[in-house]
Amino acid sequence: MPNGAQALMKTLVDAGIEVCFSNPGTSEMHFVAALDNEPKMRAVLALFEGVATGAADGYARMADKPAATLLHLGCGLGNGLANLHNARKGKVPIVNIVGDHATYHVKYNAQLQSDIETVARNVSPGFVRTSQTTEQLCQDAAEAIAAAKGLPGQVATLILPADVSWGEGGVPCQPLPEPELIGADDATVQTVADAIRSDKKTALLLGGRALREPSLMAAARIAAHSGVKLFAETFPTRIERGAGLPPVERIAYLAELATLQLSEYDNLIVVDAKPPVSFFAYPGKASDLVPEHCTLYTLSTPEQDALTSLNKLADALGANTTEPELQKPARPSRPRGKLTAEKVCKALGHMMPENSIIVDEAITSGLMLNAMTAGAPRHDIITLTGGAIGQGLPSATGAAIACPDRPVYALIGDGTAMYTIQALWTMAREQLNVTSIIFNNASYSILNVELERVGAEEAGEKAKSQLDISGPVTHFAQLAQSMGVHGIRVHTTEELLKAMEYAQNNPGPHLIEAIVPESLNGVKRKVLPWLLRSLPSLPRPVTKALKKKIAP
Amino acid sequence: MPNGAQALMKTLVDAGIEVCFSNPGTSEMHFVAALDNEPKMRAVLALFEGVATGAADGYARMADKPAATLLHLGCGLGNGLANLHNARKGKVPIVNIVGDHATYHVKYNAQLQSDIETVARNVSPGFVRTSQTTEQLCQDAAEAIAAAKGLPGQVATLILPADVSWGEGGVPCQPLPEPELIGADDATVQTVADAIRSDKKTALLLGGRALREPSLMAAARIAAHSGVKLFAETFPTRIERGAGLPPVERIAYLAELATLQLSEYDNLIVVDAKPPVSFFAYPGKASDLVPEHCTLYTLSTPEQDALTSLNKLADALGANTTEPELQKPARPSRPRGKLTAEKVCKALGHMMPENSIIVDEAITSGLMLNAMTAGAPRHDIITLTGGAIGQGLPSATGAAIACPDRPVYALIGDGTAMYTIQALWTMAREQLNVTSIIFNNASYSILNVELERVGAEEAGEKAKSQLDISGPVTHFAQLAQSMGVHGIRVHTTEELLKAMEYAQNNPGPHLIEAIVPESLNGVKRKVLPWLLRSLPSLPRPVTKALKKKIAP
Repeated sequence: MPNGAQALMKTLVDAGIEVCFSNPGTSEMHFVAALDNEPKMRAVLALFEGVATGAADGYARMADKPAATLLHLGCGLGNGLANLHNARKGKVPIVNIVGDHATYHVKYNAQLQSDIETVARNVSPGFVRTSQTTEQLCQDAAEAIAAAKGLPGQVATLILPADVSWGEGGVPCQPLPEPELIGADDATVQTVADAIRSDKKTALLLGGRALREPSLMAAARIAAHSGVKLFAETFPTRIERGAGLPPVERIAYLAELATLQLSEYDNLIVVDAKPPVSFFAYPGKASDLVPEHCTLYTLSTPEQDALTSLNKLADALGANTTEPELQKPARPSRPRGKLTAEKVCKALGHMMPENSIIVDEAITSGLMLNAMTAGAPRHDIITLTGGAIGQGLPSATGAAIACPDRPVYALIGDGTAMYTIQALWTMAREQLNVTSIIFNNASYSILNVELERVGAEEAGEKAKSQLDISGPVTHFAQLAQSMGVHGIRVHTTEELLKAMEYAQNNPGPHLIEAIVPESLNGVKRKVLPWLLRSLPSLPRPVTKALKKKIAP
Repeated sequence: MPNGAQALMKTLVDAGIEVCFSNPGTSEMHFVAALDNEPKMRAVLALFEGVATGAADGYARMADKPAATLLHLGCGLGNGLANLHNARKGKVPIVNIVGDHATYHVKYNAQLQSDIETVARNVSPGFVRTSQTTEQLCQDAAEAIAAAKGLPGQVATLILPADVSWGEGGVPCQPLPEPELIGADDATVQTVADAIRSDKKTALLLGGRALREPSLMAAARIAAHSGVKLFAETFPTRIERGAGLPPVERIAYLAELATLQLSEYDNLIVVDAKPPVSFFAYPGKASDLVPEHCTLYTLSTPEQDALTSLNKLADALGANTTEPELQKPARPSRPRGKLTAEKVCKALGHMMPENSIIVDEAITSGLMLNAMTAGAPRHDIITLTGGAIGQGLPSATGAAIACPDRPVYALIGDGTAMYTIQALWTMAREQLNVTSIIFNNASYSILNVELERVGAEEAGEKAKSQLDISGPVTHFAQLAQSMGVHGIRVHTTEELLKAMEYAQNNPGPHLIEAIVPESLNGVKRKVLPWLLRSLPSLPRPVTKALKKKIAP
């Protein structure tokens, strides 16, 4: 009879969980030992828990099934919390396995004792369980897996006391039956169809799994048939796009701009998405970005299947044979001249291969990414769903493990890169085909923007020093090399293109550090005009209103 | 009238909080802006929150007063959690300031929204408060500061919504009165004195603030007068030691050895310490390390003042004029030959200047540190109080800011170094006089030991690969240079000594990467004999019993 850990391992692989992103300690040693007898489980070591959790997130986004994490008590979970938060907000399935002291050891309040369950609730509100016996363990695990995989996907946390893990008498458990996928009910579909058929201007706001090809095609048929506008949520978990797929405009990060994007619509229909709200609150500015005159409809909740709902709606509208409008191939030209963040995005759009995976955590430096890649060959973009920076490099790691045949580009700001820089080591260890591009502008550039937006624009030197990471300027290429990743620093557009070509021709991990000027500096002076260019489909009256607003 | 942030800043500095370790985001921008008007507050930027919290911990251990942290919502707190855990276990005062969304923005469940209070409770069980109004903010802050500074010291978390921060009408609050320090009551002192006067073998176990000079001197007088043995807890928050101070033997990390250290004592008297328990549970091994025949007494709880309690006990025993036994100066000789972890410790004992601060997170590589530095000039050692690795580099950062005139040595294992490696950047930015010595053995060496101790010694290649960080071997010297810290990799003892001399003569941040073999490999074969050498004061009968045990 297997011990708890061995039975748990079998339960995981029987449910299709084949990868475990791990950073183990003593309390997890039996789980680690159980790896030896389970060839179907791949264990990927991370040097920091935030890498393990972020990799599990990126993996699940691309593999469409959860990975496990293996974390060391409350502190290991704490270190992994920020990226689990991103997964939670992105409705991404993850099965956390958090080791704990033996049940009888808890009362001694040893050094690593802490209240794991309270920490877990922050990211696993729907499923936190401390397994109490070896016999019960696999049933608990099966329920955790089912909870993670349900709609919406979620982070499920199974806390594994050491004695439950090492105890004899583990009983592997078969996967629980998968729940039926249910779409919107008929009445809702009719209400939404009526709204679309009215003479009001209507937009569909797609989020979550509605940004994957089948749902996008259904939405695009509806759009072509009924003239509705398609929007994507600001931070998609994973969006399939590029030539041959329906183009969808993303709601802008800046509330000022999002308000304008939505201003002309009278109906907004959300599909596996939240109605848009401001990322932060700002003095004197609205949090709710849906215009007052706009009526909000929910076609499909995150608990429902977006594809079923959209197909029902297309049926109701008679749109299911309409030809959808698809993105035409259109790469930007080869960039030349002074290196800027925009040109990095342009270079990517110019040369990235079909089926690339782009992880976008470039913050201010990535604002032109969407425009520059819109007509590139089909690809996926993964974004920072929960706003907890430090997601990009780990997420790219997980995506590369899920899709070994697809090149991964991680576009990362210099500030954000440093939160989970240890991911580079795992990329080197696993020889992953990830090209990380770090935009080094030596600044928390977004915060310079935010400082103004919150009305603290009179900030002096001391305050501004808290946003300035130029002393010293981190040398990311050298940093990459220290962890076994081929790294190069580029100062010119030509150098960038050469480095990107080299990376394309030599699969494996690369880091390209692009020395770029700050993209944004002062909302009124530069940011809004810049953003305007990033949203070419913005309606002309809005563009005019915006221009008026920013040039008083 | 100041806004909330400005009033809060004044409240902090009026209570003596002069340093804020920060990693801010948008919701903290008004606090950042308020720095401009408060010259008494030093803001130290970290690139990762675990650096900020660990630095606040190290700072408070050396400055004997709290610093503030500035963290960005629940995810920022999560990133800082592990080092806050270490502070909690070390009874170290910290005032966390965690920014949050504006109160009215919470209901919109924006990307960064999460339940901050539940996360905070893990490390701040005694004080978590979300300030609700600008007017109330500074009273809340004063209470947080008082909670942090009380006995025992603790982490207090003040959650600061953005609108409470930017709101007008802040009212600075004067510090609350400090509570009177109270020692053990007379009856307890008498009971303990009677136990010491009995014919039973007695040991004092000192922890927390009882390991600082005044308490150590009182304890040493008692020891000299009454023949009691002095032990220190396994992981001291801060221990003052070296030539001219009373020598105290630390309880060993390995439960097997701690049991033997305590085996001959009939009375164990704890002073601001917990009775020793095993760090982890192991199959078939006891968690409680106090021998069954031993009677446990508590002279002074963490809520009481250890110094007052020890002085009362010395009085009751008539020991207050006894000459204490003090450590004689005795540096080890200059090490020669092949470079090993032990020789790094020996080199440090050989050459470190008076008043050095040693941060010990070398794990297996640091086992000889205590023995090698016992007779060195007086110094402080800071250790990993909560077992959450990644404490050393941040803690050294904070200690150097608290004590700019004292050299800081951070002895760090290669595995642990990577959790919070971003601390190097802050050391460079602030030009701190820290010499970090990384023991690079390319392994989670402690886990190889633990794998055996939990009874999983038959582990195969796949399991062992999870403890092996040799592919690739991180180049720490290069890594340091990438963040602006002078770094050098040394392979020989001569190179090590030269690098240490260079660092002594050129104050500022240095990183010395010592390529060393694994110190430990197999408990029965090597670890216990090795540990025996690290505890020279172990009584002979115990040594004999131990030798018998390990050589069956």
